[in-house]
Amino acid sequence: MTKEKRVKPIPASARRRQAAGSARSPLAPKSLPKLPPLAGVRLATGAAGVRYRDRTDVLLVTLAPDTQVAGVFTQSKMAAAPIDWCRTHLAAGTARALVVNSGNANAFTGGAGMAAATAVAQSTAAAIGCRPAEVFLASTGMIGEPLPAEKITRILGALAESGAADGWRAAADAIMTTDTHPKLATASAEIDGRKVRINGIAKGSGMIAPDMATLLSFVFTDATILAPALQTLLLESVKASFNSITVDGDTSTNDTLLLFATGKGARHAAVGSASDNRLADFRRKLDAVLLDLALQVVRDGEGAQKLIQVDVNGAATDESARKIALSIANSPLVKTAIAGGDANWGRVVMAVGKAGEPADQDRLKIWFGKVLVAENGARTKAYNEAAATKAVSGREVSIAIDLGIGKGHARIYTCDLTEGYIHINGSYRS
Amino acid sequence: MTKEKRVKPIPASARRRQAAGSARSPLAPKSLPKLPPLAGVRLATGAAGVRYRDRTDVLLVTLAPDTQVAGVFTQSKMAAAPIDWCRTHLAAGTARALVVNSGNANAFTGGAGMAAATAVAQSTAAAIGCRPAEVFLASTGMIGEPLPAEKITRILGALAESGAADGWRAAADAIMTTDTHPKLATASAEIDGRKVRINGIAKGSGMIAPDMATLLSFVFTDATILAPALQTLLLESVKASFNSITVDGDTSTNDTLLLFATGKGARHAAVGSASDNRLADFRRKLDAVLLDLALQVVRDGEGAQKLIQVDVNGAATDESARKIALSIANSPLVKTAIAGGDANWGRVVMAVGKAGEPADQDRLKIWFGKVLVAENGARTKAYNEAAATKAVSGREVSIAIDLGIGKGHARIYTCDLTEGYIHINGSYRS
Repeated sequence: MTKEKRVKPIPASARRRQAAGSARSPLAPKSLPKLPPLAGVRLATGAAGVRYRDRTDVLLVTLAPDTQVAGVFTQSKMAAAPIDWCRTHLAAGTARALVVNSGNANAFTGGAGMAAATAVAQSTAAAIGCRPAEVFLASTGMIGEPLPAEKITRILGALAESGAADGWRAAADAIMTTDTHPKLATASAEIDGRKVRINGIAKGSGMIAPDMATLLSFVFTDATILAPALQTLLLESVKASFNSITVDGDTSTNDTLLLFATGKGARHAAVGSASDNRLADFRRKLDAVLLDLALQVVRDGEGAQKLIQVDVNGAATDESARKIALSIANSPLVKTAIAGGDANWGRVVMAVGKAGEPADQDRLKIWFGKVLVAENGARTKAYNEAAATKAVSGREVSIAIDLGIGKGHARIYTCDLTEGYIHINGSYRS
Repeated sequence: MTKEKRVKPIPASARRRQAAGSARSPLAPKSLPKLPPLAGVRLATGAAGVRYRDRTDVLLVTLAPDTQVAGVFTQSKMAAAPIDWCRTHLAAGTARALVVNSGNANAFTGGAGMAAATAVAQSTAAAIGCRPAEVFLASTGMIGEPLPAEKITRILGALAESGAADGWRAAADAIMTTDTHPKLATASAEIDGRKVRINGIAKGSGMIAPDMATLLSFVFTDATILAPALQTLLLESVKASFNSITVDGDTSTNDTLLLFATGKGARHAAVGSASDNRLADFRRKLDAVLLDLALQVVRDGEGAQKLIQVDVNGAATDESARKIALSIANSPLVKTAIAGGDANWGRVVMAVGKAGEPADQDRLKIWFGKVLVAENGARTKAYNEAAATKAVSGREVSIAIDLGIGKGHARIYTCDLTEGYIHINGSYRS
């Protein structure tokens, strides 16, 4: 692989988005962060031609011996073969490699799908000298297409030799599908007074997302944290990040978030428990990296022109608040109104009502930004359409409600629903 | 009201759809049925200017004494004032009038909303000589806008005098919002060897629908059926019709279906129980009228270009089948694929998986039309993309799945999701 080939910036699907008038998301970061090397991690990308032409579509990450791993996966009852593979091998807690392909989800591919996954894992294990069970896998792309494993396995040997410590941007490029830009985040944290590093990449135009826009995210640290503690940290950190975003309410068969700890950074005593006080700073920084990546995914939601933050307070319980927040965030009518710059708070009322959760019209308050638009069972007396419209006219819109009946709260991030979404998804395969 | 004024065919919102390139739905009926007079029912419409200009927006139906009434309403926790009014007065089981306005939903309007509803009911009662409790109400349009009741009440006297037995088409016109055509259906049935009549009208671009596309339907018969039996008939008949359609999964604050029996048709002994065998034919015809109206609503779904029938068989239970069918029917990705003529069965797999109901990849079968596309956990061996594409290219598309694990089944109707939906809903208020 030449370097030029690796960093080819715009994949075929993104070009299709561009042709559809939806080039790089207007919410994309102005500049991409440059991720530093991370001890114990080497990255290599290649163009296997699984589906796309003229772009990279395979990522191989080789990991130092004794790397610890944690993961969370889709809740779909139709999980893809690589999900089954990862779930099976996560229990052992150690990883030596990660292989990701874009263009094909290896989902609903029957016995052949698991055979293809196994072939990729075996080939990787042979190339880098580890057990197949230490190889973690993720796929994203079309559902139901047989995965041509040999296209991947035949380049794995070369990838295993070409790994580089600075391949982060190329890695983020290789895993994209309908993404309009690669997604990267980095932070440093202190454990025991020693500086450790967290690097992460992600792809996906939605968390609860399209079949070809599966959310994948891979986060790496050089800290020394044992797998059980790492798993607990991850489960806690996804709550307010990847589990609090939605683009279209469609859950992928392939959602995968893996967190690897190489233990090869500045030396500190191994941390074996997530409740260890030494993790306080690390935990904050991990939360920040995951939220950063999650928000990049929403901002790059298919067709997205606006980021929408939905805050629900005063609900009966946190779970009730979450259901109401998701009802608002997944409502096509709320999302199209925001797309149109329409402060249509009546649709927020509708979405609260349809959630079926405890609510009382006379106690409900609704804000767009800082503008209170409804209270006491009706439009506010001082209702000002111009002020409300202004509050929904920017690139970032806040919708907040207070149910006034309890202490439950939740925050969900989503994007608006535009003609771009229809255009992208009405012509994906053609 | 002059007759010319009553039958003005295209309301302002429909003109907006027309301007947006979404004139009369391509799925609209070729011709509208002409509804015959129905003994005990008189209809009058007027232009109150509640919100729209140059069109009718109020319907007054006067009903013979002792008319029996049944009803079903939205499950929203934010139900509108007219819903509360109807629920309160339904228990008595008798009705003398129905007043419907379009342009304003009288939802989330607080105490003023109930005061406005009460004013309309009182004014109607005074005009026709009955108790306010015998007046039923429905509203559709903007949520949260105070209802200017006086605009309605000041024309009620004239409407009460101008009622006509043949005003069905005008009635269907007056209750439209974003509908692109009025919705009417009629049937005759036999009870005790005597011919009775069922006439119905409906509006709404979705059952589970937009705030301004609330589903309203009013069905009338001249049969003599007592209210408790009528209510049971209605609850049974909505299951496979109005409760089995979805446009966008957004539930209105105002959904209302009322069934009135005047008892003024061909004389037969009153029917007091829904299990009375004499109702066999009536029940079939009522089912047919409700399904006809419900399908007209889906076919006129905002932006709809295709009708989609989703059949789920072999589920663990009927309830499980229904959840899976709704998951498919409400999936933006399934709906955009069908809009694009893309036989993307992987998205059906996704929608089955996200429903969270019992399912087994290896037993799942999927058909587009008569084309089996997936079985045994993978694409069919004889998979033929051209045949599958052809099956989703017409105006009516059938998606069927068999889960192979039980006997539960369900059928849901929906429409595709097009740029027209976004256009209509991103610019409704502006």
